[in-house]
Amino acid sequence: MSSTPEVDFFDRLVEAKILLPTGIDGLPGRSGMFEEVGDRLHKAILRAGADDQPETMHFPPAINRKMFEKAGFLKSFPQLAASIFSFYGNDAQHRELVQRIDEGHPWADLQGMTDCCLNPSACYPLYPEVARSGLPAEGRIVAMWAYVFRHEPSKDPARMQMFRQLERVCLGTQDKVVAWREKWMNRGIEVLSSLGLPVTLQTAADPFFGRAGRMLAANQKEQKLKFEITCPITSEEKPTAIASFNYHQEHFTKMFNIKLPDGSLAQTACLGFGQERCTLALYATHGLDTAKWPESVRKVLWQ
Amino acid sequence: MSSTPEVDFFDRLVEAKILLPTGIDGLPGRSGMFEEVGDRLHKAILRAGADDQPETMHFPPAINRKMFEKAGFLKSFPQLAASIFSFYGNDAQHRELVQRIDEGHPWADLQGMTDCCLNPSACYPLYPEVARSGLPAEGRIVAMWAYVFRHEPSKDPARMQMFRQLERVCLGTQDKVVAWREKWMNRGIEVLSSLGLPVTLQTAADPFFGRAGRMLAANQKEQKLKFEITCPITSEEKPTAIASFNYHQEHFTKMFNIKLPDGSLAQTACLGFGQERCTLALYATHGLDTAKWPESVRKVLWQ
Repeated sequence: MSSTPEVDFFDRLVEAKILLPTGIDGLPGRSGMFEEVGDRLHKAILRAGADDQPETMHFPPAINRKMFEKAGFLKSFPQLAASIFSFYGNDAQHRELVQRIDEGHPWADLQGMTDCCLNPSACYPLYPEVARSGLPAEGRIVAMWAYVFRHEPSKDPARMQMFRQLERVCLGTQDKVVAWREKWMNRGIEVLSSLGLPVTLQTAADPFFGRAGRMLAANQKEQKLKFEITCPITSEEKPTAIASFNYHQEHFTKMFNIKLPDGSLAQTACLGFGQERCTLALYATHGLDTAKWPESVRKVLWQ
Repeated sequence: MSSTPEVDFFDRLVEAKILLPTGIDGLPGRSGMFEEVGDRLHKAILRAGADDQPETMHFPPAINRKMFEKAGFLKSFPQLAASIFSFYGNDAQHRELVQRIDEGHPWADLQGMTDCCLNPSACYPLYPEVARSGLPAEGRIVAMWAYVFRHEPSKDPARMQMFRQLERVCLGTQDKVVAWREKWMNRGIEVLSSLGLPVTLQTAADPFFGRAGRMLAANQKEQKLKFEITCPITSEEKPTAIASFNYHQEHFTKMFNIKLPDGSLAQTACLGFGQERCTLALYATHGLDTAKWPESVRKVLWQ
C-alpha cells in the first residue's frame, strides 16, 4: 500500500487526537485544542482588522435556494454545490423508508427538495441583505464567519467538505473597494507571518466547471480578480491556499441590484481566511503540540 | 390581516436589526450583538460546568449518512431529517441544469444523494467516535457545540431550521449517568435563573412521527426520559423549551456497541442548551436593547 503526504498528515493528526475520523473524507471531527487555535486565530484577525470598524453579522450554513439559484453558483460550480432534501411522505411511505434503510436499499427517491441549499461561500447571504437594508454613499464593510459546504470529498485534511470561513465584504465605490482589498492582501500576509507561517501571495482562479469553465478561470487570472495566500501544509511544491481576496467588480451588485445613493451600481470585494486550513498550516509548520509552538506565535494567539 | 405573537416578535427583532430576514422561515441571519449574547451565554454555561472537567470536541453540521441511518433518527423523525444532494453530471447535463434554473423549472432530478446528511442533534457523531476511541471504567463527559438542522419551517423565531446546541454527553455506568443528569437539571435552572429568565423544569417528549410515534412519546414521558427547561418567549401559556436533559439508557450504546471495560453496555445521557432560543428568551424577557438589561444579568454575561 502506497501512501501520500496528505494521508500521512491526516493519520498523524488522528493519532494525536487533533482530528477525529468519521468515515467520510473531508468531514472529520475536531479536538478542543484544534477549536481553540481556530478561535484565537479568528480573534487575531479581528484585532488586525479593527480599523475597518466593520458591522458584524452571521448567517447559518443553510441558505435560501431561490437566492442561491439567482446568485449563479450552480452555473459556475455545480459539482461543489449541495441542495437539502427532506421527507414529505405519509405513514405508509415512512414504513417503506424504514424498510429500505433496514435492507440497505437506496432511498433517495423518497426525499424531496426543500427551499434550502448549503452555503458554499460565506458572503452569498449578504448581498440580498444589503439589497434589502441599503448602501450609504460611504459604503459598508461587514465581518462575518460561516460554516460552508463544498462537495469535494478528499483524503487531504486541508480539503474539508465542511469548514469555516472568517470573512469580510466591502461594498461601495470602485476606489474604496479596490483600495480595501489591496490593504487586506498586505495585512493578510502580515497577520499570517506574525504566526510564523511561510506564506506567499499569488494570483489564482476558482475551479469553474467543465470546458467553458477553463475560459472563465483564465480570464479571472488575467484580470487579477482573485489572489490567494498560500502556505505549505503537506507539500512545499504545491502549497495550500489558506486565505483569498476576491474583487467581484459589479458581479453581485448587478445580480442583486445594489446601488449607491447616486444611482450607480456599487462594486464589491471579499476576503476569507479558511479557519481550518490556517489552523492546519499552524500544526504543519510548528508541530502537533501547541505547548511547544514558538513563543512569538503563542504570544500572538494567547495574548 | 391577523398577526400572531410569534410574527410580531419576529417583526420587532427585524426592526431592531437583531434578526435579518432571508426569505425562508426559520433561517434568519443574526446581528453581531445577537451573536455576542450567544457566545457569552456559552461561556457562562462552560463556567458553570467546569467541575465536569469535560473533554471538548466539535463536529461539523454535516454527518456520515450510513452512521445516521444506523442511529435511527430517520425511523423516529423522518419529517425533520435532511439529506444532502449534489450534482454528478457532465457538460450536457450541466447545460440542462442551468437552463432549468433560468426558466424556473424544477431541477431536483438532476441531483444525486451524497454520503452526508445534516446533523439534527449535536450528540449523534459522538457515539461512533466513542465506539472507536473507547470508554474507561470511570466513563467520559464530552462538551460540544454544533450547528443542527431540523426541517420544520415556522414563523416562530424560536423555531429555527438551523440553530446551535450547546451540548454535553455523559457516558458510563447507570449510576453515574443518572446522577449527572440530575445535577445538570438543577444547574440548568440555576444558570438560566441567574440570567433573570423565568424558567420551569418539566417532563417532555420528542416529536415522534406518525401514529406509532404517539405511543413512543407517551412512553418517553411516563418514564421521565426527557426533561425540558421552558421559558416564555412569545407566550406565557405555551412557554418555549430552551434546554433539554435526556436519559437514553442503552439506546445509543446498544446501537454503537459501546461497552465498559467489564463488558457491560454503558448508558448515556445528554443535555443541550439551545443557543438561539436562550438568546431569544433573554431578548423577550429583558427587552431588545442589551445596554438596558438588568445589571445582575449583564454582570453574569459580561463578567
